[in-house]
Amino acid sequence: MSNAAINYANEHRRQYLTEMEALLSIPSISAQSEHIPDMEKAARWIADRLTDAGIENVAIVPTAGHPLVYGDWLHAEGAPTVLIYGHYDVQPVDPIDLWDTPPFEPTIRDDYIYARGATDDKGQMFAHIAAVDAMLNADGKLPVNVKFLLEGEEEVGSKNLEDFIAGHADLLKTDCALISDSHIISPTQPLAAYGLRGLVILELEVRSAARDMHSGQYGGVVHNPLTALVHILAKMHNENGTVQIPGFYDDVLPVSAEEHEMMAKLPDHILEETGAKKLWGEKEFNVHERTGARPTFEIHGIVGGYTGEGSKTVIHAHAFAKLSMRLVPNQDPEKVIEQFKAYVADITPDTVDVEIRTYDRAPASLVDRHDPAIVAMSQAYEESFGNPPLFAREGGSIPVVLLFQQYLGIPVALMGIGLADDNLHAPNERFYLPNFYHGIEASIRFMNIYAAQK
Amino acid sequence: MSNAAINYANEHRRQYLTEMEALLSIPSISAQSEHIPDMEKAARWIADRLTDAGIENVAIVPTAGHPLVYGDWLHAEGAPTVLIYGHYDVQPVDPIDLWDTPPFEPTIRDDYIYARGATDDKGQMFAHIAAVDAMLNADGKLPVNVKFLLEGEEEVGSKNLEDFIAGHADLLKTDCALISDSHIISPTQPLAAYGLRGLVILELEVRSAARDMHSGQYGGVVHNPLTALVHILAKMHNENGTVQIPGFYDDVLPVSAEEHEMMAKLPDHILEETGAKKLWGEKEFNVHERTGARPTFEIHGIVGGYTGEGSKTVIHAHAFAKLSMRLVPNQDPEKVIEQFKAYVADITPDTVDVEIRTYDRAPASLVDRHDPAIVAMSQAYEESFGNPPLFAREGGSIPVVLLFQQYLGIPVALMGIGLADDNLHAPNERFYLPNFYHGIEASIRFMNIYAAQK
Repeated sequence: MSNAAINYANEHRRQYLTEMEALLSIPSISAQSEHIPDMEKAARWIADRLTDAGIENVAIVPTAGHPLVYGDWLHAEGAPTVLIYGHYDVQPVDPIDLWDTPPFEPTIRDDYIYARGATDDKGQMFAHIAAVDAMLNADGKLPVNVKFLLEGEEEVGSKNLEDFIAGHADLLKTDCALISDSHIISPTQPLAAYGLRGLVILELEVRSAARDMHSGQYGGVVHNPLTALVHILAKMHNENGTVQIPGFYDDVLPVSAEEHEMMAKLPDHILEETGAKKLWGEKEFNVHERTGARPTFEIHGIVGGYTGEGSKTVIHAHAFAKLSMRLVPNQDPEKVIEQFKAYVADITPDTVDVEIRTYDRAPASLVDRHDPAIVAMSQAYEESFGNPPLFAREGGSIPVVLLFQQYLGIPVALMGIGLADDNLHAPNERFYLPNFYHGIEASIRFMNIYAAQK
Repeated sequence: MSNAAINYANEHRRQYLTEMEALLSIPSISAQSEHIPDMEKAARWIADRLTDAGIENVAIVPTAGHPLVYGDWLHAEGAPTVLIYGHYDVQPVDPIDLWDTPPFEPTIRDDYIYARGATDDKGQMFAHIAAVDAMLNADGKLPVNVKFLLEGEEEVGSKNLEDFIAGHADLLKTDCALISDSHIISPTQPLAAYGLRGLVILELEVRSAARDMHSGQYGGVVHNPLTALVHILAKMHNENGTVQIPGFYDDVLPVSAEEHEMMAKLPDHILEETGAKKLWGEKEFNVHERTGARPTFEIHGIVGGYTGEGSKTVIHAHAFAKLSMRLVPNQDPEKVIEQFKAYVADITPDTVDVEIRTYDRAPASLVDRHDPAIVAMSQAYEESFGNPPLFAREGGSIPVVLLFQQYLGIPVALMGIGLADDNLHAPNERFYLPNFYHGIEASIRFMNIYAAQK
């Protein structure tokens, strides 16, 4: 392969960093409708940048929600085609007061760039745009054909992506997908993710009365919905952290002895990364089994009652909890939802009514570790980050991987370049700049190795 | 007694209603610091109105928090002196979207006036100002000496009232106190409250990590503080609604057979008033025992996690609950707080840290049912509302009653004129206008009967 593109990328680091800052400055929060104009602005920025790089057929594709950005370069005759996916939408920023610098004013401290979306996923996504830019500038061509598919709804469950993929399977039919939306172990220890957990998002509402009540008048005679809710939620786990929904683990596949050994050897820095005082959860499984191969049930927020300044001795008429379940391979989201509903019906006292609302859902996925795309990723990682990757299952969920497998039948290389302590979804999200530069290099190498190998 | 004052009051109903509307238009929310100017405006409005009525020595008394309003009329030589207490501060208004009309734009529908503070306590308090105004206009004098003490911190625990009462015991030393800040059974069935529950306000915080976490990366290995919190809170009640804090009921006095019978005969409209589908709570006690003679534990709000629009699969580093306990006679708030702390320490898992913050506290109180003030109240109620009152214990807490008993040694007549379904502390708070007019009359009659009896 030509080193011209890598040299070009290294010589233009300052330019790529400045461009990433511009993209990070756009508050493209997909969950909040007030940011619709920012979503359009971010899509426009990306489309313009792809065009500048030399990508063709660039289009901002409207959806029922936030737009997709598509673009391609198809002049590598006889070479394979790589589908590059990323997302330009970001998580909400609250609690805003815990950010050291404003989330949409990118700030560099100690080789990190701090901003919402820095690592999830604008920064990681932009590494591939920079890689293509460097190759087209240095060589005037790419070693593979490339199609970009960049969405704006990943953080809200990729609601409209499935329709687009299903309706454009011919356009998107490629040899593999390349996605950077996950983390590696350290700046010199890459991690090849071959599994992702699935996800179910739910809300559970409890109602006991038609109106809010004074706790002096009605305390002790009307069921406080918050009390009923905590009683129901407390029955979701036992003291060991094992989920108590009947049937929840029925379809969970046991981890093979070989995989168990591999997982046991993976490093774990959870206490340092989170500041937790102690690990929690199913003691009979090792840490990487718990996050990668075991399903979980989480409470993300409880709404209801007075949460403002001072005190208010009110009993609210209703309360609800925002919940999610992470699923592992072979679990069916619909079946798990039914199990949850049946369990809640079983444990709800007759003094309250409950309502369960279901939102996004996606099953887990596992990728073949011996596919040429995975092999190319492994080699690109080693040459760019200095060490061969460890193989692991990710605890998170990327529904798009499943959609690609389901509608396009292609293998997906999850070439993450974030770090575990990048504060994803939390205040002070950041991206380690050496990983950004090595990520651009890894993207260039991936395409060259994949072209040569295929 | 002269009927001139009652005739005067009845002829000036429209004027008194218009004046109450003006007072209700001031958003005097004591819990929210942005309303400090409104608190001052409300205090000034009341001081001016007392002066207009002919009350003397009117003063707006600064405190470390919101001001008190004082005024007196002391020309009834040889007659007893009545201390009239009320509060001009109101509860917060959220959830604001459940109000049918804006909380600070008083609106009359079907003989009710709707506004925050309509019944709790601006409307009830203003009935006494109107009564004194009517007597001084009609008769040029009052049958008793009167001292007004109107505070602006009742809804935030009367933080600075105790200092004022303790420091002005000579000024406030009177023969009885008259307070309208409670409800009666129906517009024609008054209720003489002789007992009030005490109150302890707390917060319980649970922390498991130093920062917020992605539920994919850390779900299953770090204890979600919301999960830990619901496990702790679920252990506060058993299925019967009985509080599980060890020792919690140790000092609770059994209700006498006579009182039990009296309570069993009191009407109960809880299901109609609240829209609850079913009663809840300790089955071995009747409804009025549960609200009046049994202590309770309530969750008022849970803070922590994402509660905004859409979903956010985050695990927050910490979460806390806003809590209260209603106490009954002979329970010591400090002892109950220690019991709660010991229980929480006992049931908290070692994967999280907890912090307990205590706020307001007040013991319960019981008033002698045969005191001349209670007898005068009973007769005034009967003559103004058409029926003699039933006697009951209130479920709510009025800390000022205890302060009057403790520092002034005076009996307190709780001559409430609200109704149970007035939506206290809730959206669409309201006040029944016939009760307002009958309340003015009852206040005039109380002072005349008390003067004649004493």
